Amino acid sequence: MTSKGTGVSIIGVGMTQFGECWDKGLRELMAEAGVKAIIDAGVDGPDIDAVYGGNMSGGRLSGQEHIGALISDQSGLTPIPATRVEAACASGGLALRQAILSIMAGEHDIVIAGGVEKMNDVGMSQVTTTLGGAADTDWEAAFGATFPALYAMMAKRHMHEYGTTEEQMAAVAVKNHENGAKNPYAQYPFEITIEKVMKSSPIATPLKLFDCSPVTDGAAAVILARDDVAKKYSDSPIKILSSAQASDALALHDRASLTELRAAKFAAKKAYDRAGVTSKDIDLAEVHDCFTIAEILAIEDLGFFPKGQGGPASAEGKTKRTGEIPINTSGGLKACGHPVGATGIKQAVEISWQLRGEAGGRQLENPEIGLSHNVGGSGATCVVHIYSK
Amino acid sequence: MTSKGTGVSIIGVGMTQFGECWDKGLRELMAEAGVKAIIDAGVDGPDIDAVYGGNMSGGRLSGQEHIGALISDQSGLTPIPATRVEAACASGGLALRQAILSIMAGEHDIVIAGGVEKMNDVGMSQVTTTLGGAADTDWEAAFGATFPALYAMMAKRHMHEYGTTEEQMAAVAVKNHENGAKNPYAQYPFEITIEKVMKSSPIATPLKLFDCSPVTDGAAAVILARDDVAKKYSDSPIKILSSAQASDALALHDRASLTELRAAKFAAKKAYDRAGVTSKDIDLAEVHDCFTIAEILAIEDLGFFPKGQGGPASAEGKTKRTGEIPINTSGGLKACGHPVGATGIKQAVEISWQLRGEAGGRQLENPEIGLSHNVGGSGATCVVHIYSK
Repeated sequence: MTSKGTGVSIIGVGMTQFGECWDKGLRELMAEAGVKAIIDAGVDGPDIDAVYGGNMSGGRLSGQEHIGALISDQSGLTPIPATRVEAACASGGLALRQAILSIMAGEHDIVIAGGVEKMNDVGMSQVTTTLGGAADTDWEAAFGATFPALYAMMAKRHMHEYGTTEEQMAAVAVKNHENGAKNPYAQYPFEITIEKVMKSSPIATPLKLFDCSPVTDGAAAVILARDDVAKKYSDSPIKILSSAQASDALALHDRASLTELRAAKFAAKKAYDRAGVTSKDIDLAEVHDCFTIAEILAIEDLGFFPKGQGGPASAEGKTKRTGEIPINTSGGLKACGHPVGATGIKQAVEISWQLRGEAGGRQLENPEIGLSHNVGGSGATCVVHIYSK
Repeated sequence: MTSKGTGVSIIGVGMTQFGECWDKGLRELMAEAGVKAIIDAGVDGPDIDAVYGGNMSGGRLSGQEHIGALISDQSGLTPIPATRVEAACASGGLALRQAILSIMAGEHDIVIAGGVEKMNDVGMSQVTTTLGGAADTDWEAAFGATFPALYAMMAKRHMHEYGTTEEQMAAVAVKNHENGAKNPYAQYPFEITIEKVMKSSPIATPLKLFDCSPVTDGAAAVILARDDVAKKYSDSPIKILSSAQASDALALHDRASLTELRAAKFAAKKAYDRAGVTSKDIDLAEVHDCFTIAEILAIEDLGFFPKGQGGPASAEGKTKRTGEIPINTSGGLKACGHPVGATGIKQAVEISWQLRGEAGGRQLENPEIGLSHNVGGSGATCVVHIYSK
């Protein structure tokens, strides 16, 4: 990649309602988001050269693997190449990245990158067990560590080292619901209070119910094109300035720190360097707030706030739409919902809407550069993308 | 891709013993194959820029998703990008392809592409149910169609249309066991007879036990490098001339024909065109013989034999090591084994060994161009690669 960017732009976006979609399965959700993105882009099906789909748990939650072919089949896009990528909760972001790389390789001109997860057709215990497979099954899940328990340990350590408080974490949830209340696609489009978060049921101390993102069905899709092709379809393509990805140990006990995600810091540094920008240039970011503590880690790892200052910054409103750096205008995973494989793509959809000025009641004032930060598991994968008008 | 090839070469290969590996899990298998490939290439770990891993069923068979990070973690390769791709039984071939594209994109110089499956830690009924997720769960598996049943329908139709016989299908298994007997990595390194196949237990008529590939644990890995980088590490890099992928309907009833795989024909045509060769130029091929009928379809779809002649050609010995076009010198999925996500990579390993003259007792006489053909599900994905010395 050069400092001019990836040479790839987003020319169309679409997403389904996020929530409990009892009347739709994996294929209906994915096709709905894909068709919306195709219509938004104004491309014809035969113009699309390939499909990349992010999905974590089709196998365990719906009995369906081979998700790439499922998408091309259901969407009438065969015989084009269709590839599923999986990196737990970062599956969507990685699908976006592989799609970008396939265009950079000269292999494709126009690619659809989608993400989908169908989580509500099974019982909650099965969902919890399945999500445990995003962390280290042999060394964490097998000993009873659920996903909230892992993030609870990170939260405890952050509180110990930096004095972060439960109220500061609660402020993340309150802010994200404030944004989600203005997002018609959000699973929970209503506001909440600090008191409501603090009094919600304990899940894994110090995390309470309203510190946790929900179990969600949903899908999202973007249409990508090489820059010169993009101009034929759109007067307002969103340029992807950079794409960067990094990995880390699956298990928390193998990491040097519990209070930062090394993969996020690596990916962010590379993404900034390649885009030729710094954290100060970012006008808005969609970050991976699977738990409130995760957003605090994210805004520190991305360099928006000094280490240890993510909690106070959140409590002081610096991440609101009116603050220094608006975070999760979509409502984030917390209020918009977290259909695991779709989340990374939904982030790109929200950034695109904001940069195009189409974000409705939650529209920021003329943002120019956006960033998305998508985390897999408890931080073993992170992928960062930077976008501009 | 230009007619000069992809610009990417294989500089190292490795695989584990295929079989029932009771003392090794997903991570141990993958790391063993990866380390063998790294040693074979003579690269240092820090020289590797990214990991691509093919795996179908880590989630359902081992409770572990997030397989990319698992590989980079276990192999000490963090923080490099690590990505899992899944397309059922074509997961390995797609991992190879995505790794190639990432180098073509200018994103990476040296990449490890691996595949792994751990299938024997659960009961056979769970394996059968899980493999059903490679086909259409809602419209095939839900109505009781197992994977052998789908291929049995294809076999029946091929018998009806072209007069293919059960003995001709048996000849495929006999030939693959003949090759597998000379492969020290094979799960079943012994010869069998037509009579033994014909008298084996019925699985889904007309397919019998010895028409079916087995349930296998195993892993395989290749190290890929951009051509100019490859020269620094190897005097005998294997050039990847082309990579092509296609998709088709997941369910058999949505396809125009039961006696050919449209995705295979599309991918093969593109792979031949890009490599600037025809089927006549291929000196050996590893094809996807998950069932004996699948090899017959493959050698027809790839253009080695006219439609309907795959059965007689197999019975007449034209696909033996001494025949017109040696097919599955490794022993194929049938005798070498079929650890689902590893198979596509194992095919590249075998082709590399043959082109390097390192295939031991099954070595062909100075082959120059090889082809691999990796199928997902009952044909909804196919990926074809062409290699040369």
